[in-house]
Amino acid sequence: MARPRAKHVTVRAIAAEAGVSIATVSRVINGHATVSPQTQELVRRAMDRLKPAPPAARPGAVYVRCPYVLTDYFGVIVTSIADTLALHGRDLVLGAGESAQSAHVLTSLPHNPAIAGAVLILPPEPDQELQDLRAAGFPFVVVDPRTELPGEIASVSAANAAGARSVTAHLTALGHRRIGVIGGPGNWLAGKARLLGHTSAMAEAGSLTTSDLLRSAEPTTENGYRAARELLSLADRPTALIGFNDKVAVGILRAAHELGLRVPQDLSVAGFDDSDLSRSTQPRLTTVRQPLEEMGRIAVSLLTRHLDGHTVDTLHIELATQLVVRESTGPVPTR
Amino acid sequence: MARPRAKHVTVRAIAAEAGVSIATVSRVINGHATVSPQTQELVRRAMDRLKPAPPAARPGAVYVRCPYVLTDYFGVIVTSIADTLALHGRDLVLGAGESAQSAHVLTSLPHNPAIAGAVLILPPEPDQELQDLRAAGFPFVVVDPRTELPGEIASVSAANAAGARSVTAHLTALGHRRIGVIGGPGNWLAGKARLLGHTSAMAEAGSLTTSDLLRSAEPTTENGYRAARELLSLADRPTALIGFNDKVAVGILRAAHELGLRVPQDLSVAGFDDSDLSRSTQPRLTTVRQPLEEMGRIAVSLLTRHLDGHTVDTLHIELATQLVVRESTGPVPTR
Repeated sequence: MARPRAKHVTVRAIAAEAGVSIATVSRVINGHATVSPQTQELVRRAMDRLKPAPPAARPGAVYVRCPYVLTDYFGVIVTSIADTLALHGRDLVLGAGESAQSAHVLTSLPHNPAIAGAVLILPPEPDQELQDLRAAGFPFVVVDPRTELPGEIASVSAANAAGARSVTAHLTALGHRRIGVIGGPGNWLAGKARLLGHTSAMAEAGSLTTSDLLRSAEPTTENGYRAARELLSLADRPTALIGFNDKVAVGILRAAHELGLRVPQDLSVAGFDDSDLSRSTQPRLTTVRQPLEEMGRIAVSLLTRHLDGHTVDTLHIELATQLVVRESTGPVPTR
Repeated sequence: MARPRAKHVTVRAIAAEAGVSIATVSRVINGHATVSPQTQELVRRAMDRLKPAPPAARPGAVYVRCPYVLTDYFGVIVTSIADTLALHGRDLVLGAGESAQSAHVLTSLPHNPAIAGAVLILPPEPDQELQDLRAAGFPFVVVDPRTELPGEIASVSAANAAGARSVTAHLTALGHRRIGVIGGPGNWLAGKARLLGHTSAMAEAGSLTTSDLLRSAEPTTENGYRAARELLSLADRPTALIGFNDKVAVGILRAAHELGLRVPQDLSVAGFDDSDLSRSTQPRLTTVRQPLEEMGRIAVSLLTRHLDGHTVDTLHIELATQLVVRESTGPVPTR
């Protein structure tokens, strides 16, 4: 029988429910032997019926794994995921930093009853481990996949090819043809997609991309600086350099400064991400804005739709990027 | 009787444990009626003894609340907390971004059985709410308190006064006396402590701090830029400006650039934090390194010692900062 459940059950309420006196309820609660087994049973059943309902169960938590330091790029994505999960009333269990690289992190997920699903940001492990996790029936979404994932694994990334195409097209429109690219590691999906965009924009401008102007490395300021020093010391040096991200572009700016090259008069420089860095340099960086917050929101949306049992049709989502032109790019210098 | 417990219990092992044949164990498991109740009981008890132990209960999770975007400063602290909690085998439940500012976040903590304690980073709420949480017996540690906390609330912060003192002393040693300070909001503990350090270093150099050279605002690049434009347009303009953090210093650099002031020849500029930004500007910033990772580690250590029932004597911990001299500060210009 459904009835309103009080938060605190009084002896009076139990007595009324059981149809016995308050004194009898008291004796049962205190374990007196003077009450008949039948009456004891009557009182206990009444107490059971009046017991407060357990609080509504919170939906399962989501494990968010970002095995890097949460600055710039990663920090913005994780913050957006946190805000979106809060809207859905789900807890966020965080794995971040080096400790989240540990090999057993993924394999233990399906066995953790408190975790309903996961968002994995730029997962470092081989595809096979992600496929195993999928095969175990554990729901997860990958943000910014490092490699091309099989169809059944949901992923969210930026439209890297289109973004790279827009920045190269901006430079060719300014007359640049000797354009150097300091990309990410060769096996990264984002790096491959961006090279595709670059090559296509170059071809549209009637130029072929030559490998002497391509460099690839982990995208840090230091690596950007080193690759830029190398490219800028070529006999026929590039008139524009594009970094894999804003950090790499900062390294390029430093190399240009050391070599006495003015930006953008002697050299145009572009980054990628539109992080705080890109607005902090002198000159400020032309870059490509990645929809980081939207990536976080869409990842949570994909995951929660899956967790709520809805059909998820589009498993690979690419979000549009946007060219942001600032002062670090200008017309090709006339020699 | 203690014995090694196998992960998978074989029929053979059960037979050996019960002292019966494998066929008998099989019959019991399959519910054949041909086995006597005594033998059935024998086999069941053997199976119970050999049952794999449940996994050791994981210690309670720690709620980490950082109600800001996780970039730079905050992202580094949270990553360090994540790595340290992983070492302690505790889950990290994250509240970040705007959603974590919500008023009921703290009051619900003591009622969440899954959460053993919390680390609160730069909590925005009034002291009274932190005191209420403490009074409710809920264990937590504050990182970078915004206001002076009562004795019984554990906190970890950087040695702000000493850090500010070191950067001002560096500037007075270079001959600067007209030193402007673009500080944080006037009611922030860190801002007050840094002003103390600044004033004391000025006094040691025989100068009194004059309020016309002090500005305070939320520490953003934009606010740094605005305050710097103001200070640099004074008739007797300062020869050095100190920002509350590196972002503010980036705004100062831009103002100087626009006004045609060379850094450091015409104006010395210093930041605070030693974030990525400070190494990305041209010239690179003289700044004060905050021990952000160590702050995260110490906060977790304080909290887990409390959770493990150890006595925690020192409740307010200040970690040393370090002056990092780069190219943005130089000798006072001779006029």
